[in-house]
Amino acid sequence: MPMSSAQQAVRVAVLGAGNVGGALCRMLLADADGIHSRAGVRLELVGVAVAHPSLPRPGIPSALLTGDAKSLATDPSVDVVVELIGGTDMARVAIESALEAGKPVVTGNKELIAVAGPELTGAAARSGVDLLYEAAVAGAIPLVRALRESLAGESIRRVMGIVNGTTNFILTTMAEEAIAYEDALSEAQRLGLAERDPTADVEGFDAAAKVAILAGLAFGCDFPPENVHREGIVGLRGVDVAFAERLGYVVKLLAVAERTDDEDSGSPPEVSVRVHPALVPNAHPLAAVRGAFNAVFVEGAACGELMLYGRGAGGTPTASAVLGDLIDAASRLRSGGSSRAVPRRSVRSRPMEDLRCAWYLNMDVVDLPGVLGAVATVFGQNGVSIRSMEQVGLGDEARLIFLTHVAREGDVRTTLKGLAQLEMVEHVGGVLRVVDGEDEA
Amino acid sequence: MPMSSAQQAVRVAVLGAGNVGGALCRMLLADADGIHSRAGVRLELVGVAVAHPSLPRPGIPSALLTGDAKSLATDPSVDVVVELIGGTDMARVAIESALEAGKPVVTGNKELIAVAGPELTGAAARSGVDLLYEAAVAGAIPLVRALRESLAGESIRRVMGIVNGTTNFILTTMAEEAIAYEDALSEAQRLGLAERDPTADVEGFDAAAKVAILAGLAFGCDFPPENVHREGIVGLRGVDVAFAERLGYVVKLLAVAERTDDEDSGSPPEVSVRVHPALVPNAHPLAAVRGAFNAVFVEGAACGELMLYGRGAGGTPTASAVLGDLIDAASRLRSGGSSRAVPRRSVRSRPMEDLRCAWYLNMDVVDLPGVLGAVATVFGQNGVSIRSMEQVGLGDEARLIFLTHVAREGDVRTTLKGLAQLEMVEHVGGVLRVVDGEDEA
Repeated sequence: MPMSSAQQAVRVAVLGAGNVGGALCRMLLADADGIHSRAGVRLELVGVAVAHPSLPRPGIPSALLTGDAKSLATDPSVDVVVELIGGTDMARVAIESALEAGKPVVTGNKELIAVAGPELTGAAARSGVDLLYEAAVAGAIPLVRALRESLAGESIRRVMGIVNGTTNFILTTMAEEAIAYEDALSEAQRLGLAERDPTADVEGFDAAAKVAILAGLAFGCDFPPENVHREGIVGLRGVDVAFAERLGYVVKLLAVAERTDDEDSGSPPEVSVRVHPALVPNAHPLAAVRGAFNAVFVEGAACGELMLYGRGAGGTPTASAVLGDLIDAASRLRSGGSSRAVPRRSVRSRPMEDLRCAWYLNMDVVDLPGVLGAVATVFGQNGVSIRSMEQVGLGDEARLIFLTHVAREGDVRTTLKGLAQLEMVEHVGGVLRVVDGEDEA
Repeated sequence: MPMSSAQQAVRVAVLGAGNVGGALCRMLLADADGIHSRAGVRLELVGVAVAHPSLPRPGIPSALLTGDAKSLATDPSVDVVVELIGGTDMARVAIESALEAGKPVVTGNKELIAVAGPELTGAAARSGVDLLYEAAVAGAIPLVRALRESLAGESIRRVMGIVNGTTNFILTTMAEEAIAYEDALSEAQRLGLAERDPTADVEGFDAAAKVAILAGLAFGCDFPPENVHREGIVGLRGVDVAFAERLGYVVKLLAVAERTDDEDSGSPPEVSVRVHPALVPNAHPLAAVRGAFNAVFVEGAACGELMLYGRGAGGTPTASAVLGDLIDAASRLRSGGSSRAVPRRSVRSRPMEDLRCAWYLNMDVVDLPGVLGAVATVFGQNGVSIRSMEQVGLGDEARLIFLTHVAREGDVRTTLKGLAQLEMVEHVGGVLRVVDGEDEA
């Protein structure tokens, strides 16, 4: 009977007491009765590993602090280990030690799960315990559990979303305040939404780690993050954000994991896993995701279109996701059983040049008769069909804004090379993919 | 090892082969290998109970059909029972028999779970098996699992959403095509989105059953559906939908379950559980939910704001939710353990007259000097503060459109009585609540 056995507290060790770890510890200490009454399981915080245990931590009794994460992770009196150290070194050692010692592990460590998820999942399965990582992707949004459990039988076609709040804040600010990338980045840094070195966010590394994890869950494969095609938002110009708006789109940094083959082919599934900015039509639910919020769109054969939206970062929202996993692991410790292993299969990656979508292009040309004809000829020669063109005068020059029909990426690249060779073309500026322009493939 | 034990098929009985049951049977029959490879568990459909087993069912071998649901539900060779008969009579008997026989049950029966959820959950707990009902609320959207597992430890403040696709289609059509309620209803009926007798949808009974289930999950209480305050959309006028649009709102039929007391009061939680149309600001994520889609907004102390969006009805999307539960139950049969029982506590219901929100009011008045003063006096005498007023001429009459500040519902009701006694007021038309007008309480 879960209700009675739950009276015995589950002893929790938390490794790392930064933004998320600190919030979790305070929740466990301040609201143990509330959590017990809501979830039916009593969680007792018995130890917190930090780098400098002699420094005081607000809200955490110093008696709980230790500097030795590995010893705490394997302490026989600990039932469940929560890893919130981050990184792939000490965190990995601590998780492996805990799993080996037969303790379920909850982590929010996206880098580690992205690079070592398969090995760690295997270690958890060998010990017959849980390895749960809801907090590693999209903060408080219950996306990992949805993919792993609710949609376990679903033939998933595409997972597409906004999984990095920093870049979404920058893009929202560029659009709504009509300011340049650099200024929006400064604003994000001023508000503490971007690091002083913003590389991991703005170059798409953070989103790439998350989408690698999502691809693994959606397609039951091991997808190394270094195989994710990655384009960030550095260099994105305000003029392209403004033109996108005029055309009825918003620019978003999208993380996409999609099947690109026919389900029934029999051979290993072909997928495309990538991060890049794209024009999203205003009517698409992802277009309304503003500021630091995250949202992920899931398309499956039976479920149709689903979207999950919420806070993708922040100490307390992320700690909320950790707490959900912790209750799950603790309850299963009491009731028996462990979480399901998702079967793994190999996949092929579709080359980017074979992807098909619509494109936005912005180019500055000399304002002479015949220039449009010459430009259009290059498109035509490469099999790229123009959906719309708009011309804006700029003194002796003109700016041309194109939207193409759905085209093969390789053909668009060849078109760009051809355009660069035209003397009348001064500069090809923004080149961005367009979501759901038409029937993508 | 889940992977090897999963080689033994889990034998599934499906009771009911209507829209959802038929879709599920076809998925189980046509895609058993795909489900096995994705979810790691083999599901074998061994029997289908229907009212008329001699009639052919497309895609279902007649050898699987039986007319005896109860016998199938208790057949010793059946491992898991899926109930998709609907209603509270035969379905209840079949579920109780299956649970008593020690078989996990998956159901999409919102009426039954709303009225008998606590008893059936108790029966499942006594037998140590699962009773899962993701498909009972919001179709393919993984909302029940999110509330039951991911948010198990969360102190939930409010669950608010669009959980009835029929009425959302009607409201969307009224707004976008500027047509009357009756015409939008006819359109929904023509498209098969509304029943010939639309009472259950348009009077809010369907949404009330769902929000009763959501309240139970969110607050760990037994909330009988007859205690849900229920107002439907019958009688909603196109003019109010149009005025709402002019003021920056869309009208939605909302299902709301919220805490109305301070978390820390110690006494039984006070909640408000209700279904009514309301004006939702255009910038709110729920405003963008169009047509037959559903979406539910969850607000918690730690997780912040979450929204889950997707297809709330339809055979295949609903069958997708059933399949997720079925895989869950089947995997647990193999790995041991049963799903967690949510602890139950008693709650108090806040009287509607003590709720506080902003209001929209539309009234026709005689166009004479002094009318606005007399009307405003009635508002003021009852402590209802006016946020904005707009006057539209109508020949000898005038129409006044008011938005109030947040006010106590009882005071607004008294104001309406006072207004009805003014001779200059011809008619008080639309009276609708406004979401997030300001700080609600």
